[in-house]
Amino acid sequence: MADTVPQPNKRKREVDDEEAEALSTEGKEAGVGNGTSAPVRLPFSGFRVKKVLRESARDKIIFLHGKVNEASGDGDGEDAIVILEKTPFQVDHVAQLLKGSPELQLQFSNDIYSTYRLFPPRQLSDVKTTVVYPATEKHLQKYLHRDLRLVRETGDDYKNITLPHLESQSLSIQWVYNILDRKAEADRIVFENPDPSDGFVLIPDLKWNQQQLDDLYLIAICHRRDIKSLRDLTPEHLPLLRNILQEGQEAILQRYQVAGDRLRVYLHYLPSYYHLHVHFTALGFEAPGTGVERAHLLAEVIENLEQDPEHYGRRTLTFALRADDPLLALLQEAQRS
Amino acid sequence: MADTVPQPNKRKREVDDEEAEALSTEGKEAGVGNGTSAPVRLPFSGFRVKKVLRESARDKIIFLHGKVNEASGDGDGEDAIVILEKTPFQVDHVAQLLKGSPELQLQFSNDIYSTYRLFPPRQLSDVKTTVVYPATEKHLQKYLHRDLRLVRETGDDYKNITLPHLESQSLSIQWVYNILDRKAEADRIVFENPDPSDGFVLIPDLKWNQQQLDDLYLIAICHRRDIKSLRDLTPEHLPLLRNILQEGQEAILQRYQVAGDRLRVYLHYLPSYYHLHVHFTALGFEAPGTGVERAHLLAEVIENLEQDPEHYGRRTLTFALRADDPLLALLQEAQRS
Repeated sequence: MADTVPQPNKRKREVDDEEAEALSTEGKEAGVGNGTSAPVRLPFSGFRVKKVLRESARDKIIFLHGKVNEASGDGDGEDAIVILEKTPFQVDHVAQLLKGSPELQLQFSNDIYSTYRLFPPRQLSDVKTTVVYPATEKHLQKYLHRDLRLVRETGDDYKNITLPHLESQSLSIQWVYNILDRKAEADRIVFENPDPSDGFVLIPDLKWNQQQLDDLYLIAICHRRDIKSLRDLTPEHLPLLRNILQEGQEAILQRYQVAGDRLRVYLHYLPSYYHLHVHFTALGFEAPGTGVERAHLLAEVIENLEQDPEHYGRRTLTFALRADDPLLALLQEAQRS
Repeated sequence: MADTVPQPNKRKREVDDEEAEALSTEGKEAGVGNGTSAPVRLPFSGFRVKKVLRESARDKIIFLHGKVNEASGDGDGEDAIVILEKTPFQVDHVAQLLKGSPELQLQFSNDIYSTYRLFPPRQLSDVKTTVVYPATEKHLQKYLHRDLRLVRETGDDYKNITLPHLESQSLSIQWVYNILDRKAEADRIVFENPDPSDGFVLIPDLKWNQQQLDDLYLIAICHRRDIKSLRDLTPEHLPLLRNILQEGQEAILQRYQVAGDRLRVYLHYLPSYYHLHVHFTALGFEAPGTGVERAHLLAEVIENLEQDPEHYGRRTLTFALRADDPLLALLQEAQRS
């Protein structure tokens, strides 16, 4: 790796090296489990829950805002977000468990139905944990669940209201560039077309732990850095879009043996971040954000551009905004006048 | 704030009610509750997985069909269904966990984001387990989830394959006519525009129990009987479509005080039945069928027809079919030749 400028952000490999040093004695004492990673600590000390940002009993996920590092420094502490999500079941592990004598507590039985609390072995009990630290106010807002309002943004609304509003925000996408530059997550890359204009990187999404295929989720991030979203797309981008669709599906077929007719390939509008990217999710997985008010099938985007070069500049696009999103007020005001 | 997505599996509510009753007597004997119960065994011996009936990575649930008791009796064994579901998080337990030193394995870190596998203590790791034993064929069919395949149907495919296939089916829509003729559900009608060409009936969908607004679900059924689906729509139908959109939203505002910007108004393709109808669902409700591969926003349908009278005759439409749907084989065959 030819970088000579020291990176301010830790890269995976650096952390692993430090881990190995710091924990070479602790590891043996603590009896490291069957994972191949040495155990680590959270990147902060203490975690005082300030707010539950969001929780879903359906999805078995919780997003917490906490104050950390309160004991050190000036005592004000810093903000962190911790997202915990239970993991899906893997058939093989479950089959093993049920063959034997799983630890069970009976809840009740009634005729042919009985329910239990089952306490599985450690490997079935892992919790997918994501930490955002330090977290800014923007992050807190991003994860906070709010009432939604549907908005119809005309082509003019986008130019006059939404785009200026976006440009006034400053949400960092350094993590995107880190991936494109192979400064982070390089070993996670599934496929790359390195062409600077028509190429992209295909990588598993953070939300997918890659342990099973039924919630398969990958992202194709284009190399060029001048496309914010669907709104910027013109026929000039057709080679890029076709590459993503075809090469992306082919790579997923090769790596995971999942064919194109079992994939949902789409863009978001509004996207979560303003560097063009395409989602590849398992068709059977009702991923958040596959709703008609946010997702746009890539095959249809391509056809729309073939039919009308100005489609995404001119047409009205529909999406949902939080009730307290300043953009909502701006768009509603413009539409009233 | 917890998501309010209702459980699609009705049996789940029934089980919950039954639990409450049964617990009061059995609870004391078994000491059910917070881990003080005597451990029990499954009501059968051995469990050989025959089939994964259904699994959802999003919901962290798996339904397994297994053969049990194969070692005893005549050796054929019996059928059982085991349903395992991870449990939601409880804030208090999680807060405790994060304050201390949870057992973590680093997956990777990138800028301010880091992800881990976390191994929580036993009490956060319980799995809700339901057993149906002995299970009959009806039970197996009930829980069986069919694999989906995505299909892209061209305008020609529709005329040559799908339409003839539909016409060869004989699905009765008498129930639709009963509503339009006020022979059934007349007292449920929320609004009617009686015009035989441009009018419709607005009625709560069967899936909505009307007890709360967050899963609000109404259907607008057009009076005219010659529109099977989206495919038949031409500019001739614009007055009807505009009436449904405007008068439907107005009626819902009047009756339920839910404004248009809190509604998702869309058609299905493929529809569940071939008499044109439009869905009105609460925006915050991720109803089944709001996915991009099935839903078509009515406002966009109207605009597409304004742009191109032949849009729905000519354009390729995308939808998912069960892997064993005969239509899938017909379309794939046509597309191969």
